[in-house]
Amino acid sequence: MAVARAKLAEATGGEHDGAEDALRRLTRLVSSDIEACNRLIVERMHSPVALIPQLAAHIVAAGGKRLRPLLTLAAARLCGYTGRRHVALAACVEFIHTATLLHDDVVDESTLRRGRASANALFGNKPSVLVGDFLFARAFQLMVEDGNLEVLAVLSAASATIAEGEVLQLITQNDTATTEAQYLEVVEGKTAALFAAATRVGALVADRGRGEADALEAYGRNLGIAFQLVDDALDYAAEQEQLGKTVGDDFREGKITLPVLIAFQEGGEAERAFWRRTLEGRGQQDEDLAEAQRLIARHRAVERTVERAGRYGDAALAALSGFERGEARAALEDVVRFCIERAR
Amino acid sequence: MAVARAKLAEATGGEHDGAEDALRRLTRLVSSDIEACNRLIVERMHSPVALIPQLAAHIVAAGGKRLRPLLTLAAARLCGYTGRRHVALAACVEFIHTATLLHDDVVDESTLRRGRASANALFGNKPSVLVGDFLFARAFQLMVEDGNLEVLAVLSAASATIAEGEVLQLITQNDTATTEAQYLEVVEGKTAALFAAATRVGALVADRGRGEADALEAYGRNLGIAFQLVDDALDYAAEQEQLGKTVGDDFREGKITLPVLIAFQEGGEAERAFWRRTLEGRGQQDEDLAEAQRLIARHRAVERTVERAGRYGDAALAALSGFERGEARAALEDVVRFCIERAR
Repeated sequence: MAVARAKLAEATGGEHDGAEDALRRLTRLVSSDIEACNRLIVERMHSPVALIPQLAAHIVAAGGKRLRPLLTLAAARLCGYTGRRHVALAACVEFIHTATLLHDDVVDESTLRRGRASANALFGNKPSVLVGDFLFARAFQLMVEDGNLEVLAVLSAASATIAEGEVLQLITQNDTATTEAQYLEVVEGKTAALFAAATRVGALVADRGRGEADALEAYGRNLGIAFQLVDDALDYAAEQEQLGKTVGDDFREGKITLPVLIAFQEGGEAERAFWRRTLEGRGQQDEDLAEAQRLIARHRAVERTVERAGRYGDAALAALSGFERGEARAALEDVVRFCIERAR
Repeated sequence: MAVARAKLAEATGGEHDGAEDALRRLTRLVSSDIEACNRLIVERMHSPVALIPQLAAHIVAAGGKRLRPLLTLAAARLCGYTGRRHVALAACVEFIHTATLLHDDVVDESTLRRGRASANALFGNKPSVLVGDFLFARAFQLMVEDGNLEVLAVLSAASATIAEGEVLQLITQNDTATTEAQYLEVVEGKTAALFAAATRVGALVADRGRGEADALEAYGRNLGIAFQLVDDALDYAAEQEQLGKTVGDDFREGKITLPVLIAFQEGGEAERAFWRRTLEGRGQQDEDLAEAQRLIARHRAVERTVERAGRYGDAALAALSGFERGEARAALEDVVRFCIERAR
């Protein structure tokens, strides 16, 4: 964490702005591109079946950060790309992300997303599943229009890996015997695969060789892992308002995340019995969340999870070291800070 | 119907075998190809996450007819194709079909599929949604390996159209004001789009020009509509054992299909009140299915639906008229018979 902070301080001129500022700077860097991307998203989620754009608009327009398409756009910029292909490919990345969000919320039975009612809560599970399928298909239509088979290979492989990560998460849910290696496999699948694909695609459009593409993919993958670890930490730490989703969701759903793995590992037999009862069984009570948070705090499991995230953040920063210093690199370094700082 | 029968008699040498025989003949025509396709399906549904091939095997190996991949293989044969690309593309078609079946069963809350427990009944809704996503992504990976952008365009567009048809079906469900035009739009989306894509892709690999591709697409689209109309007729006519799915499902789910549209249209006010109560409201009783079947029978709605299917069958046959007579054309003509005869 200290290393990441030091590197960030060095990279950004020594000052620590708020996390939101980092995201704003990235958005400003590619502002006309992300605006074009947003227009394309709205245009291409159109369908004569009106419920499709209605439901899609609910989630697409719900104030998402557009982090993944921003990464595609900034990666292309970092590689010196000056064409227009990256705009449509950033939209593909966001469509795939949105499709997985719709299906995730159905699978997790979530009622909140980005601080408002989730699509499944508002429209029902059935259209959420089907509109997710539509957006996924539409993403592939956009990629086909772009016409690059390597991009298609990267994003179709990422889509399969995301589904594998989600299924593995289902399997490990409610199982306190889950290992840290399995947890990381889930994180790499459900989150990091799309971050890595988003940044790799940004490099691919610039066509500057495998080295830069590999480096930006490594950046995206490590950033994605850091992002998810912080997300998992926040679920035990954040106020509901700050998080924009229901706090304690992971606990209630019996998801085995790093904070729990740490607390379980370090806890005595009584603590483990608590985790087994609340996470594995059907015996969870409303008041158990407070006890879970107390145990998490006792073992500093949130802080230690964020520290681990910081190490992945360091790896993300290291992956950028071969690129020329400048606005684009600084913005991508800022994103690492954004991902970690939001836990503070 | 009489016309279709006459054409079929002419096309197949005058004898009417059973419907199953027609399918067997098609399977025999492309037997080594469909075996290679089946092997590829099993090979490519593999994942280190064991639940994925387990769940996929349940539906893939559940004795499906493999009608759609057979159509791809036979269409390629009809166009004189002698390469190997059609095998992998037939597998793509089946993967897309299987993905939509998994999601359909979740959306429809079905408990039976092909005469056995549906995947969602056995494994739960959550893995069914996610394994559907995996199979869909895997289909695109296979297409990317094939490397033809026109094929990718056809199958990604079909995938979007399928989702649109499914959403439109949701919207028209429980709404007796649904028009026949809306019903046909649902059918063209949820069923005919993939039939049309399957046969077009078979023509595309042979690369014999737009004329043959358009003709085989028209064949597939009309066949698909005929297939779905017969399916909808069977839901009010068939014995459960024959159908391999729960009889009366459409009625219980309030799906507005052609038999209902006919009976509603022709019925008096009392009959319409019955349909409104049972299809629109929550007031359906177990004994209502028998009354629904009585009203359907009174208006010969099953027979008239099958007659309509026969006209689409005629159009499918007509689309083949420009192709050389021979085993492949006869087999594709047989499939039309298979689709219609299974209603008898």
